[in-house]
Amino acid sequence: VLVSWVTEVDGAFTRDDPFGPQTLPYGVIEDADGRHVAVRLGDHALPLRGVAQLGERVLSLVSGDSLDPLLAAGRTAWSELRAELRDLVDRRAIPKGARLVPLDEVRAVLPFTVRDFVDFYSSRHHAENLGRLFRPDAEPLLPNWVHLPVAYHGRAGTVVVSGTDVVRPAGQWLRDGKPVFGPTERLDIEAEVGFVCGGAIQSRVPVSRAGEHLFGVVLVNDWSARDIQAWEYQPLGPFLGKSFATSVSAWITPLEALAKARTPVPKPSVPLLPYLVEDSPGGYHITSQVRWNGTVVTTPPYAGVSWSSAQQLAHLTVNGATVRPGDLFASGTVSGPKPSQVGSFLELTAGGPVTLDDGSRRTFLADGDTVVITGSAPGPDGSVVGVSEVRGTVLGSAP
Amino acid sequence: VLVSWVTEVDGAFTRDDPFGPQTLPYGVIEDADGRHVAVRLGDHALPLRGVAQLGERVLSLVSGDSLDPLLAAGRTAWSELRAELRDLVDRRAIPKGARLVPLDEVRAVLPFTVRDFVDFYSSRHHAENLGRLFRPDAEPLLPNWVHLPVAYHGRAGTVVVSGTDVVRPAGQWLRDGKPVFGPTERLDIEAEVGFVCGGAIQSRVPVSRAGEHLFGVVLVNDWSARDIQAWEYQPLGPFLGKSFATSVSAWITPLEALAKARTPVPKPSVPLLPYLVEDSPGGYHITSQVRWNGTVVTTPPYAGVSWSSAQQLAHLTVNGATVRPGDLFASGTVSGPKPSQVGSFLELTAGGPVTLDDGSRRTFLADGDTVVITGSAPGPDGSVVGVSEVRGTVLGSAP
Repeated sequence: VLVSWVTEVDGAFTRDDPFGPQTLPYGVIEDADGRHVAVRLGDHALPLRGVAQLGERVLSLVSGDSLDPLLAAGRTAWSELRAELRDLVDRRAIPKGARLVPLDEVRAVLPFTVRDFVDFYSSRHHAENLGRLFRPDAEPLLPNWVHLPVAYHGRAGTVVVSGTDVVRPAGQWLRDGKPVFGPTERLDIEAEVGFVCGGAIQSRVPVSRAGEHLFGVVLVNDWSARDIQAWEYQPLGPFLGKSFATSVSAWITPLEALAKARTPVPKPSVPLLPYLVEDSPGGYHITSQVRWNGTVVTTPPYAGVSWSSAQQLAHLTVNGATVRPGDLFASGTVSGPKPSQVGSFLELTAGGPVTLDDGSRRTFLADGDTVVITGSAPGPDGSVVGVSEVRGTVLGSAP
Repeated sequence: VLVSWVTEVDGAFTRDDPFGPQTLPYGVIEDADGRHVAVRLGDHALPLRGVAQLGERVLSLVSGDSLDPLLAAGRTAWSELRAELRDLVDRRAIPKGARLVPLDEVRAVLPFTVRDFVDFYSSRHHAENLGRLFRPDAEPLLPNWVHLPVAYHGRAGTVVVSGTDVVRPAGQWLRDGKPVFGPTERLDIEAEVGFVCGGAIQSRVPVSRAGEHLFGVVLVNDWSARDIQAWEYQPLGPFLGKSFATSVSAWITPLEALAKARTPVPKPSVPLLPYLVEDSPGGYHITSQVRWNGTVVTTPPYAGVSWSSAQQLAHLTVNGATVRPGDLFASGTVSGPKPSQVGSFLELTAGGPVTLDDGSRRTFLADGDTVVITGSAPGPDGSVVGVSEVRGTVLGSAP
């Protein structure tokens, strides 16, 4: 199973691999010896414990069983580790004690302890689409939306790693206007981009310093039970319609890998209060593909999201709330302007069911369905930087 | 500073002390030697590490620097530890290696790692009072309220221990219909009762087995910035108006100490779905007193809250979400039927300012104000079981 680095490094990735040396995302794999921090190289994982070529300082951050120490260490350490890894890979140096593990022969686990999970609502197209569906006779966008990045807290304890099966949740919802209890009949996805936080515990982070607290990105599938959500969410927001599972990529793409993917967020439609004004381009050209049982049904473009991660973090902490290593916040459902770019099946099937490649027709998720979201962004020298997939299969409701 | 147990045990509490041997709440104190799990006895703390009379099994659970191992150990261990402590105190046995530390000479810290924090909205009087204030022309109670315990996730990372100062949050709110940024002008409290969870990680906890996951109770002050909250909360619920700080008691009163305080929750106004039907009395006779700069301004009665902790936990997990040791959930603002029993200053001052004992008049909190909430419940043989105070002082907004 384990192959030596020296003989297989060239087989681990190809020149146009989205997980080549331009990306180097971090994760944690589990084998008979326990859990190991690793970096992804193509379709292989390189466990980092014992890689003697790494400096002692960075090696100590990646020799445990989770990314928690690395997240806490802060941006200087993140840059140092990445530079050393780039050097190793570029020089094809033989890392003493290193081994490459094929990803399909190992289990990747949730790589960090999720502290607080916040979900924003920052795609204007998504907010407008939902406004039209839920409040057909009113303005689709509520007045606060253009002035601040609307968000809520989700459940950190049910954030799960890509590949984890999702049991169809049961709960209370309205049938013919009467509350009933049963498995959701409107199980949906939300395709999002998530930001994993690190660095010092800090409140009132200005937009200009958000980068010190943003370690990397993951794809997020915020599974949603629309019938449960619709009945429960007034006046305190989504709760059980969301809290049963939120899936995230097993591998975190460092923000340093996305330097070439930066792009301005859309121009705000109103003047912003000073704490939300960002000089530099705040968005990222990350395009995702959503596969429903193998059929690509939509390709949400993160670049069109209205609020940047820096604006979101500044807003999140402006009241004195701290950001901690391990905090996770997500963009909210990413929907582009076109019907082929929406990030939820609620929007995708608003006009009627979709037909998948196998001829089956779907409005919401059926038991046994698998959803895979993949992501990519432009990298240096024409390369592509991958954002690792988030995958989940729906199991029937527990009896 | 440290006095020996054998000479001072009788001075540590009196017969009618709410923190006598009928209560024995757990906390963590910090001194020059680090943090120590302790039990409160009157106005003293008894650190438990090294108390050789305790059995090895329970001693190992209370010899660390937090209550986390005890919470995870589950109900059998909780009962065993409590029985051994009761025996020690009742027999006035000399605990070898024990010392009693006056509470005013030691710092009590947040005694456990808060995982997910959920806040319910389970007081009907509070929900109706707020409905009348926010939606004067509509039914005060939304239709879902009588069918399910409405709740949302709060921020776990800003749960702070009693005694922590609270910095007035700044944020976005409406002045004359226009969004402005500044310190909140409507800083409020919410007096609540919180439940600290433990035992196995478990989803779909039936009401009949909730007790296996409920370790004890604390008082909660869910500080709220009403202007920030009013502007931000549609459609996803409260966020920055709440997330800057939530204060909890330093000492957790075990649910075993509240056995005599059990009382049925109010009869539901509609038939409940089976997963919410509870046979046994689900509420507790816990009365709290809210002191605003020393003046008792209100005495919220928890006994009138409509949904029990067992119903709340059953609802919280019915969708497959897990409860974990360290999860905290709170009742929501406790308001009784009388104006002198409301749990927020928004309700208290809806008709105009209150006058405090020093002659000052208040609508919302001023910088320098201190709020202390204390709680008590009936115990065995006419005794009173205390729920430790939650205290906080408002500091001016950060520049």
